[in-house]
Amino acid sequence: MNTPFSLSSPTKIKEDMSKAWKEYQEKNKDRFLNELLDLLRIPSVSARSENKQDMVRCAEMVKQRLLEAGADKAEIYTTPGHPVVYGEKIIDPSKPTVLVYGHYDVQPADPLELWHSGPFDPVIKDGKIYARGSCDDKGQFYMHLKALETMVRTGTLCTNIKFCIEGEEEVGSINLGDFVTSHKELLKADVVLISDSAMLSLENPSIDIGVRGLSYIEVEVTGPNRDLHSGVYGGAVANPITILAKLIATLHDENNHITIPGFYDDVRVADEQERKMIAAVPFDEKEYMDDLGVKALWGEKGFSTNERTGVRPSLEVNGIWGGYNGEGAKTVLPSKAYAKISARLVPDQNSDKITELMINHLQKITPPYITLKAELHHGGEPYMTPLDSKAYKASAAAIRDTFGKEPIPVRGGGSIPICDLFDKELGIKIAFLGFGLDSDNLHSPNEKFNLENYYKGIETIPYFHKHFAAM
Amino acid sequence: MNTPFSLSSPTKIKEDMSKAWKEYQEKNKDRFLNELLDLLRIPSVSARSENKQDMVRCAEMVKQRLLEAGADKAEIYTTPGHPVVYGEKIIDPSKPTVLVYGHYDVQPADPLELWHSGPFDPVIKDGKIYARGSCDDKGQFYMHLKALETMVRTGTLCTNIKFCIEGEEEVGSINLGDFVTSHKELLKADVVLISDSAMLSLENPSIDIGVRGLSYIEVEVTGPNRDLHSGVYGGAVANPITILAKLIATLHDENNHITIPGFYDDVRVADEQERKMIAAVPFDEKEYMDDLGVKALWGEKGFSTNERTGVRPSLEVNGIWGGYNGEGAKTVLPSKAYAKISARLVPDQNSDKITELMINHLQKITPPYITLKAELHHGGEPYMTPLDSKAYKASAAAIRDTFGKEPIPVRGGGSIPICDLFDKELGIKIAFLGFGLDSDNLHSPNEKFNLENYYKGIETIPYFHKHFAAM
Repeated sequence: MNTPFSLSSPTKIKEDMSKAWKEYQEKNKDRFLNELLDLLRIPSVSARSENKQDMVRCAEMVKQRLLEAGADKAEIYTTPGHPVVYGEKIIDPSKPTVLVYGHYDVQPADPLELWHSGPFDPVIKDGKIYARGSCDDKGQFYMHLKALETMVRTGTLCTNIKFCIEGEEEVGSINLGDFVTSHKELLKADVVLISDSAMLSLENPSIDIGVRGLSYIEVEVTGPNRDLHSGVYGGAVANPITILAKLIATLHDENNHITIPGFYDDVRVADEQERKMIAAVPFDEKEYMDDLGVKALWGEKGFSTNERTGVRPSLEVNGIWGGYNGEGAKTVLPSKAYAKISARLVPDQNSDKITELMINHLQKITPPYITLKAELHHGGEPYMTPLDSKAYKASAAAIRDTFGKEPIPVRGGGSIPICDLFDKELGIKIAFLGFGLDSDNLHSPNEKFNLENYYKGIETIPYFHKHFAAM
Repeated sequence: MNTPFSLSSPTKIKEDMSKAWKEYQEKNKDRFLNELLDLLRIPSVSARSENKQDMVRCAEMVKQRLLEAGADKAEIYTTPGHPVVYGEKIIDPSKPTVLVYGHYDVQPADPLELWHSGPFDPVIKDGKIYARGSCDDKGQFYMHLKALETMVRTGTLCTNIKFCIEGEEEVGSINLGDFVTSHKELLKADVVLISDSAMLSLENPSIDIGVRGLSYIEVEVTGPNRDLHSGVYGGAVANPITILAKLIATLHDENNHITIPGFYDDVRVADEQERKMIAAVPFDEKEYMDDLGVKALWGEKGFSTNERTGVRPSLEVNGIWGGYNGEGAKTVLPSKAYAKISARLVPDQNSDKITELMINHLQKITPPYITLKAELHHGGEPYMTPLDSKAYKASAAAIRDTFGKEPIPVRGGGSIPICDLFDKELGIKIAFLGFGLDSDNLHSPNEKFNLENYYKGIETIPYFHKHFAAM
């Protein structure tokens, strides 16, 4: 199977390698896409218990595909939640090992009525793959399987590769921590490589150097012990919706600072150099607003949009419900109201601490005629990759090779809860190599992934391995 | 059929009449109940289009039952919405005519999971009928059919009776206005008699002398044009849930006064005499709180609980929703959030005016980066029955006859949108004769109606007709 390369000169080897990769990928293009579409057809929604069997089915498919791509072995590890898929191709224990992390679970698809096509019935339109998980993260982790296949089939693999593809990223990687801690030897590697983030654009390739952390809670606010007639009792009994609204309303002050005492205490303040770097990132505010359909932007006073989503923490209500939301009118003063609230954290905030601050604060400001119960859904720590790490340097070199441009380092707004853990438990850095776009509708209806980005990812990844092996 | 009465003396007539009514009702007790249970089995939810056929079925049953109870004629009148059932028994055009108003539609039954038995599968437990509509209003208007039957079968009917039983009370009687206006001759009467309200208790019988009006709106708040990833965009784009919460939070100030400019302008201030009357109504605050399971009451500063629900307007959020409310966590910054908001009005507030004030105020306080759309669900005017009217006097005399006590006049917190219209269009007053209890879970899960109250209503109503005929 392995294609012998001419050994006449290193440049020649490089050229031959690039040519072999390109040819192999071009020839197998359609299959690379069709395999991904198969994976996207499985509704692997980790948050919903009704999809438990789909999760197992999806893990099985990932395992099978790892073996087909050239892995020596692939295994499914059960956890108290959804399984982890592990795979490896060890060419030489003395060579560097790259641990690819990804997740086969996806966000819930609701609201379903806003999708133009079925979330689990992928459609190619205008050069984009529309499906839940197309970008986050099935499309992106699958690039690594096809990169592995490319390197194996062309006889050019120069690193050991391990895969850790989990099924609980969208619910906070609740069991992966234990899995990593108890499988340190199995996962031993020199770097973690993750494609679960975005780049600015194919014209302005960027590399994430950090992700935000997360504290996600759900609150239940109870007033009267039963739903009441809003005429008979209206005006005399506290309405839990009104009180919940008042609680939420106080969480941001008039400058959109978060009011929870202690919330900002551990925030690492961006220095002038970092703020300059952020200001230099190509960003068209009008285009950004037009894309979102808003007339004005919003956020913490004193910071730019990219600072607000990169170096500053944020707090959002992800869901709210209570009382009657059906057709027509119902004159009810409800017993309960609920909200899902989450904060995005930056270094050096700590998820457990922020969760505690949030819950304590909400309890404290809840008036005596109302009961508030809060529970943690999940959390994750913020993380940053040093610019002078091999991890970042290998990513940057790979981008230079395939884009012919210097990548822009940026701090991402999303969260990958496992980054901090990989760093702490395995003592290795994270290399981010994301090919999604912010406009890919992650977590929203009509999630998409550009075909061009998918193929560009498969093209770029082998260069990462090549450069990392040479460092 | 008609039982001849002795004409020896008026007192004797009265006694014989009472005896005949009592005997007839005692003998037919079980059937009176079973007929009601049949009616309760029809899910006549006017707010839900899926129950449209049930509404028609329910109207048919009411018509049939009117004829069986002794009406000379009964008809179903279609409207652009749900039909109105009309029935009459005219004994002598020169005698006074009582127009009985009621409604066969019911509130939606959700949240279904909180019902102990099916909302449309009536169950008798501890002397109470549990079912949606048992009290509001099927159980209460059906008392009038059984009272008619009692009077007809015992040959004691001394008024003409007309029935107007509508199917849209729970959605604001949206088509009854036109029906009344275009059927003035058909509905011509001397008084409207309504059992769609509560009394304090069988020990402390009371009579409503007023109902509050209603302005019910739904608002849709839009931020970005699609649901966003709360990591990628969190902190940089206004979240419609947060903004909606802020809007709702400002609608009551720190004294729980409603902050909408002009809202209180037309409120008729209760004078010392009325406040004394309200303070004299038997009311145990601890019992009230225990029943509701709340540790403290809430409401407009400077007013008692009974004033807050009687002579003061109120504003409640009846429902709120937006973002993700499913199992687990979804890190979404939603595009839209919604609320159903209603105000209860007192004389001399006007529903159209208040609706306009509410919507204008909400529009005005909505920040420029958010779009707010508001629409009216329904409205209704507040109404009061003068204490010196025949309507009130006949109700009070009937209560005295069957309870042996002077009734307590109270102002009810609920709304019967049609009262004001009957007064204006037909030029007649409303007599309230409610037999429900505030604790009957109207508009809530496990709605009930005490059997004793049902039978007491059937017993009392004939006395109203007797007294009204004699005035």
